[in-house]
Amino acid sequence: MVCQARTENHVIGFVPTMGALHAGHLALVKRSRQDCSRVVTSIFLNPKQFGPGEDLAKYPRTLEADADKLAGANVDILFHPDATEMYPPGFATYVHVQGLSERLEGRTRPGHFQGVTTVVLKLLEIVQPHYAYFGRKDAQQVKLIERMVTDLNLNTEVVVCPIVREADGLALSSRNVYLSSGERSAALVLHRALNKVREEIAAGVRDALQLQDAMQRVLASEPLARVDYAEIVDVETFEPVIRVQRSSFALIAAYIGKTRLIDNLLIEAVAEDPDKFSFQL
Amino acid sequence: MVCQARTENHVIGFVPTMGALHAGHLALVKRSRQDCSRVVTSIFLNPKQFGPGEDLAKYPRTLEADADKLAGANVDILFHPDATEMYPPGFATYVHVQGLSERLEGRTRPGHFQGVTTVVLKLLEIVQPHYAYFGRKDAQQVKLIERMVTDLNLNTEVVVCPIVREADGLALSSRNVYLSSGERSAALVLHRALNKVREEIAAGVRDALQLQDAMQRVLASEPLARVDYAEIVDVETFEPVIRVQRSSFALIAAYIGKTRLIDNLLIEAVAEDPDKFSFQL
Repeated sequence: MVCQARTENHVIGFVPTMGALHAGHLALVKRSRQDCSRVVTSIFLNPKQFGPGEDLAKYPRTLEADADKLAGANVDILFHPDATEMYPPGFATYVHVQGLSERLEGRTRPGHFQGVTTVVLKLLEIVQPHYAYFGRKDAQQVKLIERMVTDLNLNTEVVVCPIVREADGLALSSRNVYLSSGERSAALVLHRALNKVREEIAAGVRDALQLQDAMQRVLASEPLARVDYAEIVDVETFEPVIRVQRSSFALIAAYIGKTRLIDNLLIEAVAEDPDKFSFQL
Repeated sequence: MVCQARTENHVIGFVPTMGALHAGHLALVKRSRQDCSRVVTSIFLNPKQFGPGEDLAKYPRTLEADADKLAGANVDILFHPDATEMYPPGFATYVHVQGLSERLEGRTRPGHFQGVTTVVLKLLEIVQPHYAYFGRKDAQQVKLIERMVTDLNLNTEVVVCPIVREADGLALSSRNVYLSSGERSAALVLHRALNKVREEIAAGVRDALQLQDAMQRVLASEPLARVDYAEIVDVETFEPVIRVQRSSFALIAAYIGKTRLIDNLLIEAVAEDPDKFSFQL
């Protein structure tokens, strides 16, 4: 059906989601609507990207509300397969990005990224979009998908969209509904720690250890927060940097109570001035 | 370019090869030419499907003769990338079929099938064929590619073509050029062993161990041959069978001197009669 749209000279945009849609997802849809003549969204809670101890069972399922939001956003096609349609008996094929899948999120969540790249490849093959839209909050996921698209010669362009935040700075996430009101306040510590990195770099600090220490001190000030990682990495390789000299990410993963949240700051080198950086929170 | 052909309502056929073309490859091209309005062939000696001790360095390279043969067979496009075009620096993404990749050929050649499925996916993405043609001599490879195409929702149909043999029964292979004249005679033992299985089944034998023993006895009669495996497996799962009751393969891998050859017999159940089988050598 979508393949058919491609032959009819439509420009096809695709927004893959796991449902529990929030304003971050809708920003992806809006961008796709601007770029493309046909917009496809998928809602598939992909079991293969959840580990044994993770939150697949309790992950929020809000299909009716999601469908209303997508209709309101003028989406042309909603693709909502079930798990046996995506993974029928005998399914055995996986797509894996070596190295990058094993670090950071991948270290804490083994198998997670293989689940992501496998399902995204399948969805791209089914939908055959010209453009696929992803949010920068999942920075490492975006990089993995870009790597996969390049390495496997896929005929889709990955479009990365900004993080959408609440007014007080909390990055939107389907998992925010897990937070109690006390945890909701505590969760702001991720945003504060990233802001601290921005201030330090603006003040001339370049040493990555010093910047990581600054993040850790902010995070340690919040008793409900337990840090998984807080690192400065190269924007392409996601390898730790010693000094901030090129474009980098400050990445944080932290548990607030039992809820694991991630957030990041994009530190962009300004081409004309090697000592100047711009920031995207 | 080929993608363009798809939008122009052409039916695109694709024959991926590693070069060193023989009549087996040309039979694939001929079949593709019958089915399709555009025929694409690739010649790519894929380093990722060769192990450290294998024959990548000495594998026959006959590009000019290959190109002449393909022109004579009326191929529309010859795609001949080099290794750095297919695997540029930073390449990190692999496609893996779990289970099936680890048995038989995969046990002797670890990593081989991951190299095959990865390069075939890349080629299918580049060429975007409606039909892709493979020879049944590489029976396990064909099954892996069929599995990958199904599991990853690829928009290509796999077409399996018969084994092409020399007049005396030797299955065509680019590796046959490695054989000395004594080894060339000895290599016929694979065909003889498979013929023996056919005779035994036709005579009523169904026990897989008995059939495997019969193969082993024939193979042991040839001093230059060293058996890697000689098994009866299910045609779908490639798991060993106890009795031949459904469609099965007799599979042989054997070294003739230093040259490793494979061959197989397809034992097809005849739907109307559960005790009757037809054979494809």
